[in-house]
Amino acid sequence: MSNRKVRVGINGYGVIGKRVADAVVAQEDMELVGVADIVSDWRVKVAVTKGYPIYASTSQAVDSMRIDGIKLAGDLDDLLDRIDIIVDATPKKVAAANLERYRVAGVKSTFHGGEKHSLTGHSFVAQANYASALGRDTTRIVSCNTTSIVRTLGALKNAGLLKRARGLLVRRATDPWESDHSGVMNTVVPEKVIPSHQGPDAQTVIPDLDVVTMAVVASHTISHLHAWTVDLTRPVSKDEVLAAFHSAPRIAFLHMSDGIVALNSTLELMADLGRSRGDMWEVGLWEDGLTVNGSELFYTYQVYNQAIVVPENIDAIRALTEIEEDAATSIARTDHALGLMREFVC
Amino acid sequence: MSNRKVRVGINGYGVIGKRVADAVVAQEDMELVGVADIVSDWRVKVAVTKGYPIYASTSQAVDSMRIDGIKLAGDLDDLLDRIDIIVDATPKKVAAANLERYRVAGVKSTFHGGEKHSLTGHSFVAQANYASALGRDTTRIVSCNTTSIVRTLGALKNAGLLKRARGLLVRRATDPWESDHSGVMNTVVPEKVIPSHQGPDAQTVIPDLDVVTMAVVASHTISHLHAWTVDLTRPVSKDEVLAAFHSAPRIAFLHMSDGIVALNSTLELMADLGRSRGDMWEVGLWEDGLTVNGSELFYTYQVYNQAIVVPENIDAIRALTEIEEDAATSIARTDHALGLMREFVC
Amino acid sequence: MSNRKVRVGINGYGVIGKRVADAVVAQEDMELVGVADIVSDWRVKVAVTKGYPIYASTSQAVDSMRIDGIKLAGDLDDLLDRIDIIVDATPKKVAAANLERYRVAGVKSTFHGGEKHSLTGHSFVAQANYASALGRDTTRIVSCNTTSIVRTLGALKNAGLLKRARGLLVRRATDPWESDHSGVMNTVVPEKVIPSHQGPDAQTVIPDLDVVTMAVVASHTISHLHAWTVDLTRPVSKDEVLAAFHSAPRIAFLHMSDGIVALNSTLELMADLGRSRGDMWEVGLWEDGLTVNGSELFYTYQVYNQAIVVPENIDAIRALTEIEEDAATSIARTDHALGLMREFVC
Amino acid sequence: MSNRKVRVGINGYGVIGKRVADAVVAQEDMELVGVADIVSDWRVKVAVTKGYPIYASTSQAVDSMRIDGIKLAGDLDDLLDRIDIIVDATPKKVAAANLERYRVAGVKSTFHGGEKHSLTGHSFVAQANYASALGRDTTRIVSCNTTSIVRTLGALKNAGLLKRARGLLVRRATDPWESDHSGVMNTVVPEKVIPSHQGPDAQTVIPDLDVVTMAVVASHTISHLHAWTVDLTRPVSKDEVLAAFHSAPRIAFLHMSDGIVALNSTLELMADLGRSRGDMWEVGLWEDGLTVNGSELFYTYQVYNQAIVVPENIDAIRALTEIEEDAATSIARTDHALGLMREFVC
Repeated sequence: MSNRKVRVGINGYGVIGKRVADAVVAQEDMELVGVADIVSDWRVKVAVTKGYPIYASTSQAVDSMRIDGIKLAGDLDDLLDRIDIIVDATPKKVAAANLERYRVAGVKSTFHGGEKHSLTGHSFVAQANYASALGRDTTRIVSCNTTSIVRTLGALKNAGLLKRARGLLVRRATDPWESDHSGVMNTVVPEKVIPSHQGPDAQTVIPDLDVVTMAVVASHTISHLHAWTVDLTRPVSKDEVLAAFHSAPRIAFLHMSDGIVALNSTLELMADLGRSRGDMWEVGLWEDGLTVNGSELFYTYQVYNQAIVVPENIDAIRALTEIEEDAATSIARTDHALGLMREFVC
Repeated sequence: MSNRKVRVGINGYGVIGKRVADAVVAQEDMELVGVADIVSDWRVKVAVTKGYPIYASTSQAVDSMRIDGIKLAGDLDDLLDRIDIIVDATPKKVAAANLERYRVAGVKSTFHGGEKHSLTGHSFVAQANYASALGRDTTRIVSCNTTSIVRTLGALKNAGLLKRARGLLVRRATDPWESDHSGVMNTVVPEKVIPSHQGPDAQTVIPDLDVVTMAVVASHTISHLHAWTVDLTRPVSKDEVLAAFHSAPRIAFLHMSDGIVALNSTLELMADLGRSRGDMWEVGLWEDGLTVNGSELFYTYQVYNQAIVVPENIDAIRALTEIEEDAATSIARTDHALGLMREFVC
Repeated sequence: MSNRKVRVGINGYGVIGKRVADAVVAQEDMELVGVADIVSDWRVKVAVTKGYPIYASTSQAVDSMRIDGIKLAGDLDDLLDRIDIIVDATPKKVAAANLERYRVAGVKSTFHGGEKHSLTGHSFVAQANYASALGRDTTRIVSCNTTSIVRTLGALKNAGLLKRARGLLVRRATDPWESDHSGVMNTVVPEKVIPSHQGPDAQTVIPDLDVVTMAVVASHTISHLHAWTVDLTRPVSKDEVLAAFHSAPRIAFLHMSDGIVALNSTLELMADLGRSRGDMWEVGLWEDGLTVNGSELFYTYQVYNQAIVVPENIDAIRALTEIEEDAATSIARTDHALGLMREFVC
Repeated sequence: MSNRKVRVGINGYGVIGKRVADAVVAQEDMELVGVADIVSDWRVKVAVTKGYPIYASTSQAVDSMRIDGIKLAGDLDDLLDRIDIIVDATPKKVAAANLERYRVAGVKSTFHGGEKHSLTGHSFVAQANYASALGRDTTRIVSCNTTSIVRTLGALKNAGLLKRARGLLVRRATDPWESDHSGVMNTVVPEKVIPSHQGPDAQTVIPDLDVVTMAVVASHTISHLHAWTVDLTRPVSKDEVLAAFHSAPRIAFLHMSDGIVALNSTLELMADLGRSRGDMWEVGLWEDGLTVNGSELFYTYQVYNQAIVVPENIDAIRALTEIEEDAATSIARTDHALGLMREFVC
């Protein structure tokens, strides 16, 4: 491991960017050099009060942010000069151009799951393919849904139990803080194409996964729910399945018997636990609902879309910069720093 | 077929009762003798303006409804004296006692899917088991979700295509007219037990159906959505699957290409078609989303819970009273009178 | 009154256009010559099945609609050749250009409340200013909210009771059939500017109205709710206030005591009444909630935004074309043809 | 001020109870002796992990909670033996009986706004009537909505500006963590009676307040919104109004220009600020929307119902136990310990 801290920048201080910023600050082996954005709203103003150096992502933003009273540490070029790696959390359309810019500046980079695999040629979930990311220039952290699929089906696969998985994703319509007419109200919207893209996307991480998904958008804002029907390689007990999930990181168990019976009660639990922003980084899998019937397995879990990829971003930083060679060690450090759990209550 | 019209009464003038009343009126071989209820709200007052004779379901209701200014044609005993068959659409807890009362009065009866199979010993979906209901004293019209399962999986089974079906039901939280704090807001609630009850319930109609369902409640009011993963008996073309669905009644096709892309756009289509209350009695199955991959089949459909069982009620009346021996003839008469369609637009 | 029917065209077959089309068909003194649009979705296809002649609004649409299999009666020029007046229900940005085109073609026109008063120089609510629209080339039917304000405050004003009115509008977020991420979920969004625009807009119809409104968008799709605090010119009884509202057309009374306790129960009542699309053209004012305290008046009412302006459109057609000189006669004809009511249940 | 800490117990560990518990722990002059409840769900289990001593509120609960594995510190009698004052946050129906029990045990008590004023004979908002609560046995902390009214209208009144206030309350339907069919979906429900109860309730604290409110329930879960029309005693500038609000505690300013444009964006801001559970204890008043027109004032604010009364509870503990004689000192201590702000961002 390197002696000095890895110098990290964030480009795009939104849902993911602000969370990764906090997570970087929580790591002993990383330094948050700054966050870049183009607006001056409450998000950036809170970053100022946290003492995060603010950079303007674009030259126009330099002027507009200064007019809005944001004290800037520089522009994106300045930030690139001062960092080893950048987490790109910008909207979809600007990422491709950004990658070229990062490369020219000699800065490693991570992108998010809204980008295509082909942008980086590598798609990342720490527990599945950390090793293959070591020393790379760039990688793509797959989306929240895909991350959850790789974590759970990867666990079953590693235990030799997975034959075929078919899933239905009940997606949230927009994020809970959005009020700008981006929602879907009092309806369910099935995705036009079956299978939905998450299956092939998971295969960018685990190529030989037999997975097909359908997806619908439902009329809620707080996180996704997945319902799975899995054909196992053999008849097993529920305990064997749980053991397989236990052997993988970042899957936590929810219990209807504790009153955690729905997406929103889980989030109240996160709030009661005092978690920052009420985030759940783990896949929240309902243990008492999980059912095994011969060699068929059924279960549901919750994907907190705003935060589940945050620890993956931290691990990707370590892998690309090679400050840590070992996946398990990186995962353990990340999870300890953030406070991931296996069981939320005693 | 009998010379005179079957005399029908309705007990419980709510979501189902009021729709069955209208549907009875639409049949040439039936007469709506009256509707019975215990309240005096707008529903009953509209029934008065429609000219439906009103009866009080209970002796207490005789007084309270009269105080509220509802002109009564009598009480439930009076209604039972004047009818051949009664459609019981009362809430769950009173049905069992009602059955005994109907039997004593020599009146045939149908119950709804909220009741148990054991109450009547027979569960009804017209296209599946009309013949076995002929002349019975009573039957249970299975629930909206179960009706849709029997219609669609029954169609695949009759075509020799069905091996195994696994479904995820995204249920509506409460009915669209409910404002009395019965809703589920901004969340998804998975049912505590997997499998959910709809699979076994479908087996009360088609005993050897290999079906397992999971269910969640989502944050909308307007109808249910089902997403299915089906293992077929052999690799088939999409056309063969569609032909199987075409060969069964009461399945209509929705087209994303027409702009019918979600539960609520379907209901706008029903409204545009001038349908009474905007009802959809058919299973609305998305044809362009349906996907066949070898011997695996994936599709989604919409179940308009407030009306899908209405035509089944009409057929059950004919079967129990034996005014029509043939299922296909009854179904055709019902569907013609109500205006069921296979394709909603040209 | 003219001997022959007024020939009417509709440009834009959406929420308002399709309803006005049906309403025109329902009038004895009007003929629906055709409806023009640019898309080929289910709406237009249903119009085809209703036998409405379809025109393409733009030259590009001529091709695209024909490719989609829509049999066209012509383009917008063809339609303009065949009509006396056109109801423009197109989206905001194209209306101004349209007006010039209609003028050149010698066709009278009505626009909707999304347009500015300055476009037409006249803003219309039948009961307030029908006479001033007689023979004009064009007018603007004010928006749903403004229409409701003119109807109700106009009634109080005509009765000599209105001193000052302050209202809070709880607006629906998007229409019930919309699923294209236009909603506002699980929040309330206050309008940025107080007063909101509806007060000044009402003054385009009744210039000396002392009215100020605030507005918020809430997380529902089905119609608006207004809550009013009114200073009256003198202390009055509740009966006097109700009499004032009774003396004006198109205000109907809702009763909590009938179970009509919320926006959605009203709509269920409309459905039970068998109204086309479940529409309510009246202002639905809660009679039992209305409270008078000395010279202060408080009440709430419901504005069904998708349909409340439909009868106003019909009257505007009569006024502009002068087939009827008298406002009250036109209103009575319109309301009879559509089936407006004062009390929905007995 | 007393030398030793006030010993505080909480009865009822729900929405309010768990927040007051944390707030008590945050005070230097208070000790949380324990929390009592009757269930063993995740809430109580999290309290266990926080190290809060758990008591069973009822004798039946002693057994059921032990069966569920909750280690108990005793029952309610044991808790009463060990404390000076108890915060009763139990559901409505048990409070009256509780008061008698607390009195017998010689323990002071506070109740919440769901209880009637007559239960305690004193209703409390710190900035309005702290002095009158000094040394009393018991008081009632008024409800979230009433607290906000007293804070804001009290501020205007103290500044000599308030003549008459009329408000419309847009209430949340149920709490965000509730999934047990307690919601109101896709509608707005006006309260049956005008005026709603909050005006008279505010008068239990400030008797001569000229305030009338109407209330509706809207289809969201996260906090209430109030819209006010106020007649001032004289024409003033916006700055004078803001100064009046500034002179009172626990009113914070929201800015649309910062992107805080709706109830949910405010809550995202609270989360970004790292507040426990994302709570807002202040009335969040939109400064840039506030409008003065002569002697008329219009504004909207947000009431975060789950937390706004928490600081009032802390002050009430000090007032009843007389560990602090001065209202301003108590308020300042409370607000410093919890972290209340006047402006959320720079």
